[in-house]
Amino acid sequence: METLEAIKTRRSIRKYTESAVPDDAIETLLEAAMAAPSAGNEQPWHFIVIRDRNMLEEISKKHQYAQMAKDAQVAIVVCGDETLEKYKGFWVQDCSAATQTLLLAAHAQGLGAVWCGVYPAKDRVSAFRELLRLPDHIVPLCVVPIGYPAEEKPSAERYSSARVHHEAWE
Amino acid sequence: METLEAIKTRRSIRKYTESAVPDDAIETLLEAAMAAPSAGNEQPWHFIVIRDRNMLEEISKKHQYAQMAKDAQVAIVVCGDETLEKYKGFWVQDCSAATQTLLLAAHAQGLGAVWCGVYPAKDRVSAFRELLRLPDHIVPLCVVPIGYPAEEKPSAERYSSARVHHEAWE
Repeated sequence: METLEAIKTRRSIRKYTESAVPDDAIETLLEAAMAAPSAGNEQPWHFIVIRDRNMLEEISKKHQYAQMAKDAQVAIVVCGDETLEKYKGFWVQDCSAATQTLLLAAHAQGLGAVWCGVYPAKDRVSAFRELLRLPDHIVPLCVVPIGYPAEEKPSAERYSSARVHHEAWE
Repeated sequence: METLEAIKTRRSIRKYTESAVPDDAIETLLEAAMAAPSAGNEQPWHFIVIRDRNMLEEISKKHQYAQMAKDAQVAIVVCGDETLEKYKGFWVQDCSAATQTLLLAAHAQGLGAVWCGVYPAKDRVSAFRELLRLPDHIVPLCVVPIGYPAEEKPSAERYSSARVHHEAWE
């Protein structure tokens, strides 16, 4: 799929078919995510790939906006590693760039996915830390349930000239 | 350009030719950025488009890692608007997703660009607030200098299997 078309037509997909997602498609997503830029090229990310049905159900129980995880074929939890930061405080941006790249790569492969925020909601961070047995320096940023789409959505038109300024605020 | 190819071949470009960047190319970048997902679809972003040569030079003076701005044809400052947040604390992720989408759209159009972090470095936030006359609720996240590339870089191979975990941390 052409890049600008992928960007324009990507939507948050919350309903999935029962078709299996092949391992090589997941690997393509992870390669894409790790191709993202990061502050000082620090790459402060980890990815937990979850396929186990019980784990997917646990995620849907622990995150009120990630109910669709129980019906997904796979979910990827994107985590930040504070010990890998060269520039303190930038891991959220780095891992967010990786997540959006993963979402675009999913859409380009015909997969559907949705970014469910975890950090900085403290209760969700704690719940995911416990479920995934994360060390203290690893922070779960978000969980991305993934599968072949069982819903179709038209492109969203979000462009707003009111959000564009020239040379300064006004 | 094909999406996965764009993701794989995008690099931070810091040297630019003197060729002008047309307005419609900039508009395509802004459309792409605003197509990014955001928490609760809050879209808490603003974009300051800077073409004025004096302003580009001021940016290079105020940000030690954005020296290339003085030679860029344009720079876009991505800002978060805290008053537009439905879910407090998520604007950094939303605006980072928008920035990465902008970078990919630049590369797909044959442009070169680089993400120069501003927030959360307090001195840079203050400097950009003053230069761009930003209201208190608007936070500059980053500045992205843009132009046609005057350097070529091969794809970076950043994939690391050590960053991939299955079902849980270990």
